[in-house]
Amino acid sequence: MLSPANSGLYVCVAFFHTGPHGKLSVKAIVLDSGGLAYRENHPEPVPQQGEVLVDVLQAGICETDLQLARGYMGFSGVLGHEFVGVARTGAMAGRRVVGEINCNCGVCTSCQSGLGNHCPNRTVVGIDRHDGAFAERLAIPESCLHAVPDSVNDDQAVLTEPLAAALQIGEQIDLTAVQRAVVLGDGRLSLLIASTLARSVPHLWVVGKYQEKLERFERRGIPTMRLEQAGPEKSFDLVVEVTGSPSGLPLALNLVRPRGMVVMKTTVAADHHLPLAAIVIDEIQIIGSRCGPFAQAINVLADRQVDVADLITHRFSLADVKQAMQMAVDPKALKVVFDIGG
Amino acid sequence: MLSPANSGLYVCVAFFHTGPHGKLSVKAIVLDSGGLAYRENHPEPVPQQGEVLVDVLQAGICETDLQLARGYMGFSGVLGHEFVGVARTGAMAGRRVVGEINCNCGVCTSCQSGLGNHCPNRTVVGIDRHDGAFAERLAIPESCLHAVPDSVNDDQAVLTEPLAAALQIGEQIDLTAVQRAVVLGDGRLSLLIASTLARSVPHLWVVGKYQEKLERFERRGIPTMRLEQAGPEKSFDLVVEVTGSPSGLPLALNLVRPRGMVVMKTTVAADHHLPLAAIVIDEIQIIGSRCGPFAQAINVLADRQVDVADLITHRFSLADVKQAMQMAVDPKALKVVFDIGG
Repeated sequence: MLSPANSGLYVCVAFFHTGPHGKLSVKAIVLDSGGLAYRENHPEPVPQQGEVLVDVLQAGICETDLQLARGYMGFSGVLGHEFVGVARTGAMAGRRVVGEINCNCGVCTSCQSGLGNHCPNRTVVGIDRHDGAFAERLAIPESCLHAVPDSVNDDQAVLTEPLAAALQIGEQIDLTAVQRAVVLGDGRLSLLIASTLARSVPHLWVVGKYQEKLERFERRGIPTMRLEQAGPEKSFDLVVEVTGSPSGLPLALNLVRPRGMVVMKTTVAADHHLPLAAIVIDEIQIIGSRCGPFAQAINVLADRQVDVADLITHRFSLADVKQAMQMAVDPKALKVVFDIGG
Repeated sequence: MLSPANSGLYVCVAFFHTGPHGKLSVKAIVLDSGGLAYRENHPEPVPQQGEVLVDVLQAGICETDLQLARGYMGFSGVLGHEFVGVARTGAMAGRRVVGEINCNCGVCTSCQSGLGNHCPNRTVVGIDRHDGAFAERLAIPESCLHAVPDSVNDDQAVLTEPLAAALQIGEQIDLTAVQRAVVLGDGRLSLLIASTLARSVPHLWVVGKYQEKLERFERRGIPTMRLEQAGPEKSFDLVVEVTGSPSGLPLALNLVRPRGMVVMKTTVAADHHLPLAAIVIDEIQIIGSRCGPFAQAINVLADRQVDVADLITHRFSLADVKQAMQMAVDPKALKVVFDIGG
């Protein structure tokens, strides 16, 4: 692979195979009713109108991928939505790119009012009716792509999507009014959220279960609490729920102060069983938060505003999907990536 | 009773009795472990520091009273928190008054920062460790009282507390940005909420179960839908949940548009079983909303900004507590009040 520090234009050398029917095929991780499987000869994606092909360099495993593999959303197809690659066609051909995941129609009321991420006609890369990035090649709307500057290497760029999701909190609420915040969860997305919040929130804590994970926060100067010590109750202006567990929101509702805010970042397939009277009595705001601003995330990476150095802990090839998915739920791991191309 | 239109100062003539132990006693409706009961000789309330005595003229039954009678909050004592009365002592002695229900400490951080309604040391009139207004006489902090102008009669003034709760929505969110709203629930609080929202929201609907209740909205020019017709899904900027039912919030989450708001107005004792992924995916805001601005509510009543003419549908004496509480859950009824003094 050419060094990203030396070249803005990539020459991508990949050898693609023809499958059993003579069509081009790619290596890919595919989810279907039989579960998750590595395929040596998956058909190459066919770009639809407005789409370009991207040769994937790296793709990261996210909590949502783990949920999808368990049946959440009923997705079938190529998994994966966090990636860095090289555009193969279109105006950015030859350049390193990252991609937003919402493939919207561009013409509906939501799209026209700047809420394309909520387009009711959208498909979502690797999540909803659109093949994803755990493959050698990806078809994606050109409008989703952002060029990656040379100052951001692949290990950083592959984190653009979750970093943008972390930054979305600041797009939705006024962080300058937040004095005391707590992030619930000690995983990969929590680390990005805590790192971005730490830039402006004077008193920030992280609550987690695993000492080795919490140490990553401590090393960044972010104080941590074990789950059983979380408190005091009703004292935080902002609680960010990133546990991926049904017990996260009830804990958040205990910790947030009256008139405070709970931001929900993780989608869980399970229903929640909640005592909701406290939301009314304490006039709590609960705010769902999903995808975020890519351009801002790329700038944060380029300017080294957050330290993502030790976020990627494990690397696998696509063929080792089982080990990779197992490692992604291991407390020892943080971000697990597939090394795919380059 | 002197006509409120003719006099700002009341001469309250009430005959109080001495109870079995020689102390003054009053008629009152008391909730204890044995349930809700009318007492002929309940001890007269003793004002604590900063409190004054109020002779109650009328008191309204609210959904929260029905929940409390079923055991919500574990309250015991005199029920009732919506009232109009005549101050018997203090600087407003002789004047008609209504009262805010949160008795706060005045010195804690919440109180000092203008969030007295969320004072952690507060008691709440008729709801939490403070005797309420279903009695001939009430002791209440003087700081809770607001004088009622002559232009607002008793039947209007007794609605100040729920009207303030309705107006609280406009204190919490920017209603000028709301184009399409729906109120879930066809009861007494819903009517006040819909009437206040109708002043600024161009497209407003009410969803309810009972034709005779929905007609009250239609008569005010507010279009209604039956529960089974509610929709279209994901189309409302704002959904106000006032059903008092565990099924209200799931319906609200179906109706609100992506990035829309759900305001929760009713406290229910039951836990909720909720599919919360939609909150994250659609980036919904859920906002708990409780007590509101009394001064604004009195102005709205004085200026006839909302039509509360037919809101009181039934009147009872304190002795008829059982019939009154039964009527308060009857679809034929809207606001049920106790006529107490005057």
